[in-house]
Amino acid sequence: MTSHTHQTAPTRYADANGIRFAYRRFGKAGGVPLVFNMHFMGTMDHWDPAVTDGFAKDREVILFNNAGVSSSSGKVPGSFAEMGANAIAFVRALGLGQVDLLGFSIGGLVAQETALRAPDLVRRLVLVGTGPRSGESMDTGTPEGKAIFGATYADPDDLWLRVHFTPSEASQAKGRAFVERIRLRSESRDPAVTPEAALAQRAAIAKWGAKRENAWDYLKEIGQPALVVNGSNDVIIYTVNSFILQQHLPNAQLILYPDSAHGSLYQYPELFVRHVSTFLDQKQWA
Amino acid sequence: MTSHTHQTAPTRYADANGIRFAYRRFGKAGGVPLVFNMHFMGTMDHWDPAVTDGFAKDREVILFNNAGVSSSSGKVPGSFAEMGANAIAFVRALGLGQVDLLGFSIGGLVAQETALRAPDLVRRLVLVGTGPRSGESMDTGTPEGKAIFGATYADPDDLWLRVHFTPSEASQAKGRAFVERIRLRSESRDPAVTPEAALAQRAAIAKWGAKRENAWDYLKEIGQPALVVNGSNDVIIYTVNSFILQQHLPNAQLILYPDSAHGSLYQYPELFVRHVSTFLDQKQWA
Repeated sequence: MTSHTHQTAPTRYADANGIRFAYRRFGKAGGVPLVFNMHFMGTMDHWDPAVTDGFAKDREVILFNNAGVSSSSGKVPGSFAEMGANAIAFVRALGLGQVDLLGFSIGGLVAQETALRAPDLVRRLVLVGTGPRSGESMDTGTPEGKAIFGATYADPDDLWLRVHFTPSEASQAKGRAFVERIRLRSESRDPAVTPEAALAQRAAIAKWGAKRENAWDYLKEIGQPALVVNGSNDVIIYTVNSFILQQHLPNAQLILYPDSAHGSLYQYPELFVRHVSTFLDQKQWA
Repeated sequence: MTSHTHQTAPTRYADANGIRFAYRRFGKAGGVPLVFNMHFMGTMDHWDPAVTDGFAKDREVILFNNAGVSSSSGKVPGSFAEMGANAIAFVRALGLGQVDLLGFSIGGLVAQETALRAPDLVRRLVLVGTGPRSGESMDTGTPEGKAIFGATYADPDDLWLRVHFTPSEASQAKGRAFVERIRLRSESRDPAVTPEAALAQRAAIAKWGAKRENAWDYLKEIGQPALVVNGSNDVIIYTVNSFILQQHLPNAQLILYPDSAHGSLYQYPELFVRHVSTFLDQKQWA
């Protein structure tokens, strides 16, 4: 297994909760694996090999599709609490007692729910381009996000240039390099997320984002060391939501990158891997 | 010179602008030196040797007292623009063409003014526990800061336990270790900052913090790569000011640490040195 990379790791399957979860697993085995939780409309093929292979040098990487997404069976449930329960079932089906979680965008919501529901299963959390329950503009979605997801694109991958990168020339150049990288895998690529699955994800986002009293109190229950990461100008889930996460989680570090958007991890993949590795390998935290 | 450390580096003097600047210089010569700009009421002896010697392994470190502070001659001027001009005169008096600047608290205001007035002199900026002109509660000072600086302490160093660390047991333990470290130097210690100098610093802070229209536009003129660092709960210069700096500087990264206050660099010295070194050594930035 350790000889595999992002490009060559076969899609495998694990059964739990009546769902057949598709996953790929590669990298250096023996430590705590890092489990990747994907964004809205994303599959395993949307992860950047510069990120996943970057981590795989030092640790085991596990990509998976949650229930109802792409090559996994089942239906996308109506809430992130249920998606978290499915993620827990998947991790346990692999026989793992403890993992680190990386959650990107709505994958960060799944990661939070996973940590809340199975605190012993989660060692550390990396929350990228995400936010808290009732975060700013997370109920309705942002106007920028609506325009970006509502537009049509000559090439479907061009959507991600606008979702993940800023309009600056430097950021767009990094975006084009990213799009090239996610096209590199040629074997057994994941099917696209269905419109039904995307709609179900959107409904769950609206529920997560709904305004509540004392909405951020639940973050005090997530005691794991957490690293919150975002771009300076995320217009999909506003950057201020990352600041809110850091301020309300009991044990969180925040890193924001310059001239970057929702996909800051794809704009600065080497720096991101370095920062996250420093965080995951840190002996003492506070 | 490279054989010296924080504890053994002699206090030397450089003359410029009619001021005799006291400084200490040590570490690995040959690259771009890192010049440290100190906080309110601080002298060279208030820097943490875990930080300065941490950097000195890989780069040259220069500590100095600005005009009117401790072992330097002259008067503390009425504005940070003038303090920046003095810092520039000091750096040029050493014959240096380019430096990196680390500014802590009001040292961060001096560093910003230095970068604005002499952009070619400053390669990169590290801004710790600081804020922008007209930053939140920077005109009046925070109520917490007034209480902390207004109290009396059995041991004068106990002041710094409250300024730099949170009330948590873990943070206070780190604070006591820090206080031990800053007492280690036995040779030619700096005299305390005089009440007159502290009052002049305070007057300059009120002027810097005064509310202005479009107060943060000036940050767009600071094009250098910048790393903004703070604790999660800085009550001297509120943490949100670090977020504001990052959001308005054109090329800035932000790092916030958990359960930490104004002196986050002293609470996590190893991690801080590692993050800052990564930033300073980065080949490509954006």
